[in-house]
Amino acid sequence: MDQLYFGVDIGGTATKIGAFDQRGALLSKWEIKTDISENGSLILPHVAEEILHYARNLSRVIAIGVGIPGPVQRGGYVKRCVNLGWGDFNPARELASILRGVPVFAGNDANMAAMGEYWQGSGRDAENLVFITLGTGVGGGIILDGRMVYGMGGLGGEIGHVVVNPEETIPCNCGQYGCLDQTASATGIVRAAQRLLQESGAPSTLRALENITARDVVDAARHGDELAEKAFESCMYFLGKSMAMLTNIIDPEVFIIGGGVSKAGDYLVDTVKKHYEAMATLSENKAAIVLAKLGNDAGIYGAAKLAMDCAH
Amino acid sequence: MDQLYFGVDIGGTATKIGAFDQRGALLSKWEIKTDISENGSLILPHVAEEILHYARNLSRVIAIGVGIPGPVQRGGYVKRCVNLGWGDFNPARELASILRGVPVFAGNDANMAAMGEYWQGSGRDAENLVFITLGTGVGGGIILDGRMVYGMGGLGGEIGHVVVNPEETIPCNCGQYGCLDQTASATGIVRAAQRLLQESGAPSTLRALENITARDVVDAARHGDELAEKAFESCMYFLGKSMAMLTNIIDPEVFIIGGGVSKAGDYLVDTVKKHYEAMATLSENKAAIVLAKLGNDAGIYGAAKLAMDCAH
Repeated sequence: MDQLYFGVDIGGTATKIGAFDQRGALLSKWEIKTDISENGSLILPHVAEEILHYARNLSRVIAIGVGIPGPVQRGGYVKRCVNLGWGDFNPARELASILRGVPVFAGNDANMAAMGEYWQGSGRDAENLVFITLGTGVGGGIILDGRMVYGMGGLGGEIGHVVVNPEETIPCNCGQYGCLDQTASATGIVRAAQRLLQESGAPSTLRALENITARDVVDAARHGDELAEKAFESCMYFLGKSMAMLTNIIDPEVFIIGGGVSKAGDYLVDTVKKHYEAMATLSENKAAIVLAKLGNDAGIYGAAKLAMDCAH
Repeated sequence: MDQLYFGVDIGGTATKIGAFDQRGALLSKWEIKTDISENGSLILPHVAEEILHYARNLSRVIAIGVGIPGPVQRGGYVKRCVNLGWGDFNPARELASILRGVPVFAGNDANMAAMGEYWQGSGRDAENLVFITLGTGVGGGIILDGRMVYGMGGLGGEIGHVVVNPEETIPCNCGQYGCLDQTASATGIVRAAQRLLQESGAPSTLRALENITARDVVDAARHGDELAEKAFESCMYFLGKSMAMLTNIIDPEVFIIGGGVSKAGDYLVDTVKKHYEAMATLSENKAAIVLAKLGNDAGIYGAAKLAMDCAH
């Protein structure tokens, strides 16, 4: 029987599972609902059931990697994971115990996605990269010399909480003001547009919409709506600013942009690149900026890679 | 004959040289003037002369490490080093060639100092650290999992150019506004005090001084001079802010503060710690903040370590 590795990406609403062979080829992937009732205590039993059902025989399963939406400390310990209801908990050990000792390794979901892109996505040719995921919030992962930067307490790559916007008056959920998370996320793009709509009398196709999404802002901007352009541009300015700072800190070869907002494609890359390059003044060889390739699968790829790297 | 390694720290005015044995013990150290005439072309011949004179026999010299005040790219290439007059130049190869092929490895001086503190200074017990040197400017070095973060173009650890002060109206020499370099350096501390002296009518012992130094500001602040306290406090606020950002990016175990300003000692550590801890809101285990131990010798230690690590 062939060996199997699993990559699991636990999100607040859905959990993705991927089965990989020993050469890293994705054999099958599927999704289940994340049941966060009972303080999230059903999540891992459900994952275990799926893995058992697919593998049939646990001795085929060499290792499992799990991505979690929150900081994961060395050894897999999770101090708290608000989205899942977890606290003071080691999900890696818990899942390993349910699956009769199969080795399980856990990491932050954005870190896992970074690892996925490094392994089989847009970062294949790089050894030093920063992955930035622009979704409801902003997450990230850093790989240096081919190694994930986890950080002492699991905060490595939490670049959503780099402070970039000095004019922000509303606190971020981290307690600071003006985090990248507040500006370059889908939420941030919508807020930037809404502020401009309120503050200015400028015409905009966005005024006709009841609920504005980040996609609406991007689409309007692309079609020449000046207010939408200004809103998107301001968000990309702050993203570029954070990237210029990262260049002065770790100087990566490439920035990989993923997450829902990255569907804006080349328009996003061109806009942020302009700001990044203007601000990364010390850099002789500016880092490349590319779009992520694996989309929503990046997390399961990265988690599977973690499993492969850690299990011997 | 015992084996020798050399650590060389080339500064704009003086060059420090240290001879080390194969166990990493410092055998001797001395300083020569850095002669930057003739586009700095005499600097390396002078270094070579000193090494030859000390070692007498080049076959004893296993390797040499050199710290340079500017970015050094992989392979030792220096695009430009304003302080020394160098440009488009590989000082490592040049020195190796003068010394008939002895292996020479070069790195940025602040990176070398970080390596020195990691090896034999305040970072001995850490595998993940950020070294920050507060001198005329602000430099730094990052070590993750025991490895130096050099960066693609040699900008790794250039944390002096993280933008932290949104109110700065004078450009930094990098072209940005509000870099850490402008606020937490000796220069920045003097400027902060001078601004307060000009803007406010508040009494201060600093008003009696003709040329204010960072040391004057720190001394006055320690002795309860409110204006000096306010100036120093504002600089340490921005240093703490940059450190909180670094925690959200790489999450180190410890920050090591060196450079001339670090002579402010525990007063500096206590002040910056207060601000850092208030802003590193996401961190469950805040990083320690400690003073550097090796003083001006950190650079020669780190350069010697680079030589030992690279030569086999």
